[in-house]
Amino acid sequence: METQTVVLIAVLCGFIAVLYGLLTAGQVLRAPAGNARMQEVAAAIQEGAQAYLGKQYTAIAIVGVIVGAVVLFTLGVYTAVGFVLGAVLSGLTGYIGMYISVRANVRTAEAARNGLQAGLTMAFRSGAVTGLLVAGLALLAIAGYYYYLTGLAGYELAEVAERREIIKALTGLAFGASLISIFARLGGGIFTKAADVGADMVGKNELGFDEDDDRNPGVIADNVGDNVGDCAGMAADLFETYVVTVGATMVLVALLVAGQDAVDLMALPLIAGGVCILTSIIGTYFVRLGKGSIMGALYKGFGVAAVLSIPALYFATTLLFPDMNAVIGGPSEATSVDVAPEVAAGTTFTGMDLFYCMVVGLVVTGLIVWITEYYTGTDYRPVQSIAKASNSGHGTNVIQGLAVSMESTALPTLVIVAGIIVSYQLAGLIGIAFAATAMLALAGVVVALDAYGPVTDNAGGIAEMSGLEHEVRERTDALDAVGNTTKAVTKGYAIGSAGLAALVLFATYTEDLSQFFSNVEVNFSLSNPYVVVGLLLGALLPYLFGGMAMTAVGRTASAVALDIRAQFAENRDAIISRQVRPNYARTVSLVTAGAIREMIIPSLLPVLAPIVVYFAITAVAGQGNGFAALGALLMGVIVSGLFVAISMTSGGGAWDNAKKVIEVGAYGGKGSPAHQAAVTGDTVGDPYKDTAGPAVNPMIKITNIVALLLLAALAH
Amino acid sequence: METQTVVLIAVLCGFIAVLYGLLTAGQVLRAPAGNARMQEVAAAIQEGAQAYLGKQYTAIAIVGVIVGAVVLFTLGVYTAVGFVLGAVLSGLTGYIGMYISVRANVRTAEAARNGLQAGLTMAFRSGAVTGLLVAGLALLAIAGYYYYLTGLAGYELAEVAERREIIKALTGLAFGASLISIFARLGGGIFTKAADVGADMVGKNELGFDEDDDRNPGVIADNVGDNVGDCAGMAADLFETYVVTVGATMVLVALLVAGQDAVDLMALPLIAGGVCILTSIIGTYFVRLGKGSIMGALYKGFGVAAVLSIPALYFATTLLFPDMNAVIGGPSEATSVDVAPEVAAGTTFTGMDLFYCMVVGLVVTGLIVWITEYYTGTDYRPVQSIAKASNSGHGTNVIQGLAVSMESTALPTLVIVAGIIVSYQLAGLIGIAFAATAMLALAGVVVALDAYGPVTDNAGGIAEMSGLEHEVRERTDALDAVGNTTKAVTKGYAIGSAGLAALVLFATYTEDLSQFFSNVEVNFSLSNPYVVVGLLLGALLPYLFGGMAMTAVGRTASAVALDIRAQFAENRDAIISRQVRPNYARTVSLVTAGAIREMIIPSLLPVLAPIVVYFAITAVAGQGNGFAALGALLMGVIVSGLFVAISMTSGGGAWDNAKKVIEVGAYGGKGSPAHQAAVTGDTVGDPYKDTAGPAVNPMIKITNIVALLLLAALAH
Repeated sequence: METQTVVLIAVLCGFIAVLYGLLTAGQVLRAPAGNARMQEVAAAIQEGAQAYLGKQYTAIAIVGVIVGAVVLFTLGVYTAVGFVLGAVLSGLTGYIGMYISVRANVRTAEAARNGLQAGLTMAFRSGAVTGLLVAGLALLAIAGYYYYLTGLAGYELAEVAERREIIKALTGLAFGASLISIFARLGGGIFTKAADVGADMVGKNELGFDEDDDRNPGVIADNVGDNVGDCAGMAADLFETYVVTVGATMVLVALLVAGQDAVDLMALPLIAGGVCILTSIIGTYFVRLGKGSIMGALYKGFGVAAVLSIPALYFATTLLFPDMNAVIGGPSEATSVDVAPEVAAGTTFTGMDLFYCMVVGLVVTGLIVWITEYYTGTDYRPVQSIAKASNSGHGTNVIQGLAVSMESTALPTLVIVAGIIVSYQLAGLIGIAFAATAMLALAGVVVALDAYGPVTDNAGGIAEMSGLEHEVRERTDALDAVGNTTKAVTKGYAIGSAGLAALVLFATYTEDLSQFFSNVEVNFSLSNPYVVVGLLLGALLPYLFGGMAMTAVGRTASAVALDIRAQFAENRDAIISRQVRPNYARTVSLVTAGAIREMIIPSLLPVLAPIVVYFAITAVAGQGNGFAALGALLMGVIVSGLFVAISMTSGGGAWDNAKKVIEVGAYGGKGSPAHQAAVTGDTVGDPYKDTAGPAVNPMIKITNIVALLLLAALAH
Repeated sequence: METQTVVLIAVLCGFIAVLYGLLTAGQVLRAPAGNARMQEVAAAIQEGAQAYLGKQYTAIAIVGVIVGAVVLFTLGVYTAVGFVLGAVLSGLTGYIGMYISVRANVRTAEAARNGLQAGLTMAFRSGAVTGLLVAGLALLAIAGYYYYLTGLAGYELAEVAERREIIKALTGLAFGASLISIFARLGGGIFTKAADVGADMVGKNELGFDEDDDRNPGVIADNVGDNVGDCAGMAADLFETYVVTVGATMVLVALLVAGQDAVDLMALPLIAGGVCILTSIIGTYFVRLGKGSIMGALYKGFGVAAVLSIPALYFATTLLFPDMNAVIGGPSEATSVDVAPEVAAGTTFTGMDLFYCMVVGLVVTGLIVWITEYYTGTDYRPVQSIAKASNSGHGTNVIQGLAVSMESTALPTLVIVAGIIVSYQLAGLIGIAFAATAMLALAGVVVALDAYGPVTDNAGGIAEMSGLEHEVRERTDALDAVGNTTKAVTKGYAIGSAGLAALVLFATYTEDLSQFFSNVEVNFSLSNPYVVVGLLLGALLPYLFGGMAMTAVGRTASAVALDIRAQFAENRDAIISRQVRPNYARTVSLVTAGAIREMIIPSLLPVLAPIVVYFAITAVAGQGNGFAALGALLMGVIVSGLFVAISMTSGGGAWDNAKKVIEVGAYGGKGSPAHQAAVTGDTVGDPYKDTAGPAVNPMIKITNIVALLLLAALAH
């Protein structure tokens, strides 16, 4: 088939996803929104979420305009347009995710009055809207901009200079998406956990309230947090992961492959993403409670999408490479220098090899889902061991939780390593890139599983606050317990794919370097001490970033606790007896201000670190060592970030579910000493899994992209 | 001066250290050992410690004999002799450290009855015995064995084959020391923290006893733990660090430098160690309370030793290189292939350059001491912030503690990076090696500061259990509080020096490789995916090891708690009313069995991982990639291990001292909710700082040494 036609089909698939999203959103919004009290509570959450996102985007816009101006002046108009496109769409995805989830929450609570299946359907539909919009908009952005560049703007891949413009523009797109997403992930993450921890500290521990008691002034802020952190932040993050992974794959192809093969290969990630959107949509219709568990229902949807993707990806590959056994690839004529031997070794392969690499990506995704389920599910040894350790106190709960969090890095690392080796053996670096692309192709259905979680969490809160029947809360609780695991799964998936994507970005960096600066000798060998220096500094970034994020949550949570105490000091009896409603809005705006203030500096860390390290080492030891240290920094960030992120997200999920195990009756149940210890573990796990851990994922990518843009700017 | 004479002087300095140790030990042992009850308690501790070390060494001996046999058959007799020498001396150092500290504890308690200064003198003297014996025996081992090899055994550095034998024999020595030390560190670490946590869990939380209540069956085990973990384990660890660092420096010289220069340069680390033993001895006499604090007194000793070391190292260098500005170094004739360009770039330098590199090592040591003091001292922001966070509960205490632990990696990393850059600019890889050697040269006085801690801790326990006057306990508590920081300092110092030493070991690995396997092309570039695979697998090791170690402590502590509960179930009233003594020995032997069982598998992880990774990757992708992945594994272990170890040891120290801040009155003082939260943090910090964190240091080294020996065995 004509390559441009294939790209158009991919664009069309993106539109289908958006259409699916809009139609499903319509279904959700048409559903009954409950009684007046429910709508009142929901309105307070909507207002708070809207207000927070508005302020967050204003703050980000200020940073974005400055960075955008720098991009425009150093890298030209197409890169700047890409940057704006990525930034705006990433923000839009987050906004839509929040918009739908703050409306689906109350409808899920209402639906849950009719039974578990009705509640599940409503919550999952809302998740599917976010999921398919993330995948659809991401594909539209990258396929559409690529179609524009190569079509209307008339850039030719065959021309070295024009190929460079395409590369720069796609990198700009990725940068825009990443920059927004790190702010959204971190700001939203600080908001949600500061509100949660702060509300619990005073509400549960000092006043003896249950979760979601409407007399707690922090309760609305806590529910707002679910939407702006777990939903909007997550959506922006996955949009970024999609754009960066697919974009980096295309850029790597452009750097390594020549002729018509390059044109076809650049279209393959797009059509792969396109067909998997269709399988994801089909998968969503299989999410139904049968005889199995809620988790089983969700996995059925994921499983159908994943299995159907195998023939779909085969078909997509044949569209571009009808002879699946013909050799494709080979060093690019466009490259100004010889391709490094280890790259060249893998640059000839067949369409079949690429298909196998994409299957490797699907298998890695499946295994990571399974491993995360093992480490965070309530039925397995890790969570059980934390629950058991709670029995002997707060300290042993936390010790066992930390032990589990460290151990949980082992199997995902082995899976990622195996994925790297197999796909590299099949098709070299390009093979690794396509494995990563296939992982992200499933983003639609994976995000749907995740975005379902905060909706059920909120639905429970609304049921509680508006005094619905006890069974409703029980149903939403059952739905929510599963949400803890699906949320951990998405994070494991995002960081796992980042492991592969970062390799692709690093390869792009080294290739870029050899083309832009063929006159500078760069020694990337581990025996060059400046490489070690870069590795150490890169490895430091996730630690410093994580430490800052945890401190930010602690500080903002303390402010929340003080505010709640102050509200009670002013008006204790009236609030307790429900004569006066607490001032929810005051707490919300306090968390808003705190989260936005605290997100700025850590988010700028990965943007500025590559630039500072490059110039510092260049000043001391010359440009060659500056480039070597910068490259090593990128590798150091991923090597260290992978472990920090996996340990935090899995550990946090395990702590949370260990508490649930006790709450349903183990070791004395709710209110027992074991439960108190488990609450401590859960509190510790909160910023681990919802603030610091997931924000490491965009942090890794942004460091890499800034390095790529720095090269382009230096060469300008 | 004749080079062999210089080596003999170094040997003599080693003897002086041992002599100083014996004389000071005599002083300690002649001091009054207190009343009958005190001696009874001390005897129980002595018995338990002796029994534990006996069993631990028996278990290690079994592993040691097997590994020793493998070494003998694959690497020949001199490597095996080195292995045995290193292993036996490492074990002996630990044994002596334990022997003196279980006798100094009761004498310190007795001395503290006469005042703070008398207690400090006794405890520090005992620490100085351990410190100088560690440095002295380590220097004797390496200088003596080298003297034997080049003198009596008649090996000539000028002959390539004979030079190889020297290299192998010195590597064997390092391996023996490392293997024992990882078992000792981990086994002792599990013992001390399992006993501590287990005793606290039941004694403090359930029975409401104070620390060191003699009715707690776990109390003797807890005090035994201080000696076998913090003293014996630490001594074996620092012995290993000294031998490996000095040994690796000598091996690197042998690989990179030719002719008489090589002979002189190999003697320089030995004489540098020798003169610093003398300055360390002088330093110990300056530890006196003046107007300042206890910490000030200890730092005075350290400061004097460090400052005096500067002229001493200058003098030592001039002994071998009378013309300090003459160019020395240059590629070795012994190398069978060309030295890599980045190595060659730094292989000419002057005696003055080397002197400056050693000063860099001293400055790095001083800065790490200062940074660790900042992060773990009670007067600064980090500990204060944890104390403040305790005010709002267990969860926020742990969150802030984790935030501090992550943040605490930043400054040490920057210092190490600066140290690498400056010493590399001065004298290439050899410069880095000499900076690391100078760090270790101060081991005598640093270990003295550390070994002082467990003695005062025990002294407090003995004072409590034998009902001494209240002031005695107050004095030992004051001495002990400082011990928390000095213990953290030593760990930061050990891991910091490991950062530099690992670089030297890695350089040794690559050089070895190019000489043994000049026919195999090995690509260590970061753009080789097998390098990335190695980095990821290496980075995993400290996480997996740390997770296992934390789990081991939790599991053994639970067993201790069960035993204590069982003892009370049998005999509650009689024990409470002190009619019957609890069965201390039963608890001790239970912890002993647990610690020994749990230490085996994690300790074998770093021994086996390099071998498995090499063979697995070689099978999949050829020998060149096998070597590349193995090399990257070594780098991955250090890059990740540095952060895991620093965050754990600093974080743990900070948690411990945050508790002390509250215990002296902040946020409600002892028994307040803030205090309970701080106790939780302290419990979490225990296995962090005393089990998992410090054991990462020998783990890093052993991985590197096994890789070196694997190369030698493959080439055999």
